Amino acid sequence: MGSFVMEERKVIGWAARDASGVLSPYTYTLRETGQEDVLMKVLYCGICHTDIHQLKNHLGASKYPMVPGHEVVGEVIEVGSAVTRFRRGDLVGSGVLVGCCRSCGACTANIEQYCNKKIWSYNDVYTDGKPTQGGFSTAMVVDQKFVVKIPGNMAAEQAAPLLCAGVTVFSPLRHFGLTEPGLRGGVLGLGGVGHMGVKIAKAMDHHVTVISSSDKKHTEAVEHLGADAFVVSSDAEQMGSIAESLDYIIDTVPVVHPLEPYLSLLKLDGKLILNGVINEPLKFLSPVVMLGRKAITGSFIGSMDETQEMLEFCAERGLTSMIEIVKMDYVNKALERLEGNDVRYRFVVDVAGSNLD
Amino acid sequence: MGSFVMEERKVIGWAARDASGVLSPYTYTLRETGQEDVLMKVLYCGICHTDIHQLKNHLGASKYPMVPGHEVVGEVIEVGSAVTRFRRGDLVGSGVLVGCCRSCGACTANIEQYCNKKIWSYNDVYTDGKPTQGGFSTAMVVDQKFVVKIPGNMAAEQAAPLLCAGVTVFSPLRHFGLTEPGLRGGVLGLGGVGHMGVKIAKAMDHHVTVISSSDKKHTEAVEHLGADAFVVSSDAEQMGSIAESLDYIIDTVPVVHPLEPYLSLLKLDGKLILNGVINEPLKFLSPVVMLGRKAITGSFIGSMDETQEMLEFCAERGLTSMIEIVKMDYVNKALERLEGNDVRYRFVVDVAGSNLD
Repeated sequence: MGSFVMEERKVIGWAARDASGVLSPYTYTLRETGQEDVLMKVLYCGICHTDIHQLKNHLGASKYPMVPGHEVVGEVIEVGSAVTRFRRGDLVGSGVLVGCCRSCGACTANIEQYCNKKIWSYNDVYTDGKPTQGGFSTAMVVDQKFVVKIPGNMAAEQAAPLLCAGVTVFSPLRHFGLTEPGLRGGVLGLGGVGHMGVKIAKAMDHHVTVISSSDKKHTEAVEHLGADAFVVSSDAEQMGSIAESLDYIIDTVPVVHPLEPYLSLLKLDGKLILNGVINEPLKFLSPVVMLGRKAITGSFIGSMDETQEMLEFCAERGLTSMIEIVKMDYVNKALERLEGNDVRYRFVVDVAGSNLD
Repeated sequence: MGSFVMEERKVIGWAARDASGVLSPYTYTLRETGQEDVLMKVLYCGICHTDIHQLKNHLGASKYPMVPGHEVVGEVIEVGSAVTRFRRGDLVGSGVLVGCCRSCGACTANIEQYCNKKIWSYNDVYTDGKPTQGGFSTAMVVDQKFVVKIPGNMAAEQAAPLLCAGVTVFSPLRHFGLTEPGLRGGVLGLGGVGHMGVKIAKAMDHHVTVISSSDKKHTEAVEHLGADAFVVSSDAEQMGSIAESLDYIIDTVPVVHPLEPYLSLLKLDGKLILNGVINEPLKFLSPVVMLGRKAITGSFIGSMDETQEMLEFCAERGLTSMIEIVKMDYVNKALERLEGNDVRYRFVVDVAGSNLD
């Protein structure tokens, strides 16, 4: 990394200029490395479905130019004077958030992802009043609270999808007490988050059923990801055969869908855990919930503590993500393919290996 | 009760003959008192909103003639040879259920209300193949498992609404760990269940806010029921003032309503507990749940153990229900008024004091 030189804190990222969401090179300035900051050279950055929502202004709050990317793995170049957990050369990660208020109930409970003043890693405004920009860039400066250490035996590119997709499924299983071996789980939707759901649930020794709209992903779910069972949601007989059998379902589907069929698969006290941000209302009938004391709940990524714990959990079990590595000049095509659900299962941009100019 | 004579097990109940739901005298036969059975003379029986759904076939599964009533307080007349918990003369209660399979997971965990083979106290078929009939009758025979003892210092008529409405709010607070003092709760809908919600939550030393569609019930909620606060759901300013402040909301509204406004009142990890059986789908947006790790859940009455515990909880604290006592010849008018939400807060039929012929 000797060749990495920061000229006047200028970096090159790939940014969208408008709601077309098309990315192209964009030069901007990083802040100086503050006392609590870590300057990292970006090595890899995953592409998440949420990036599409932000780039194309699906949530109505997008500001441009926007450099996306929130599954960032990098190498530490410089640390602030108050940073003790990291040193130059460390392999580190940062995720969806880069700031929080540090004084609210959520922050003091170390679940800063629920802080109402959280700062998103891009498309947000930092404490210095400047826009935040994400990991599709040569470098980032991130407060040490929002930096995690990548375990020694984990490959940098493998770690990227864990920083959002991985912790998004790990956190609710952990929080809702769904970690003991032998539980029966369902995973709805086999994208970036869903595939991590299968892998993490299997690593917890759960019996995992993938529920999908077609039989297309049967072989890969069972043979490649290690799912125990596969059920086609439109097949009433298959669905009936697992009625009231699941302790939980991780629902990663990012578009509107009926909840009834999945609620009926849950056993007494079962939980439907929503992980998909959906702008249209979801619907359900109250008796289906009441008569089985079921819960429709959900969670948002995970805390930095949970992210670190999840990385160690994955490293200990040799758990790997399934990724397709691309260069930055392919990123617009990758976004297009992701939108069409044509990726198994996560694109990771080899940022350091790309020509960003 | 010396005058109470069972001629050939014939009893007179008030039954609906069709989906008009109009009740009139109906003579039928009770089974002999089996080993495990308790024969009780009915003294009082509450009228629940669910009775209207059943009487008028709103759920599409009603069979006639139907004798409703599932908040039954009676005096024990006779017990089977295996009955040890009750004796002649005891004041007892029975509720929504009169049977269960006794071998499934729910039954062995003593939460038989979630047994898939549970038998409803009316509009169902008993193990002998005969229709079950409820408490609007001179007498009932109920398996001892489904009979509770009314505590000594509790008035018979006061106990009636506790057997369904009371345990319906007590059970979820208990199950979801929402019993410690100082919690902030909301009660949505001030009918039979809602008014018990306020009273039971206050008895747990919670800070209770009643949320209502109009200001009409303000005085009674605060002055008569002891609520700490009252908020009109259509008043954005009032609703905003309690945003993200509640640990739970007990939602007793039995008709379709938007969930968004109420979900927004819950704090992180807050629970919306549905207690209203609603046939139209309820709607919500997934981010509202996810970004606060909130849960939409619900429960169904409570177990017999919880019912007994709740009765003792109420007796210890001198907690009373607010009821309007009527005679059976007023029952059709009472049902009409209940349907129009014109009762504060529960009708209780003085069955023993009525002429049922």
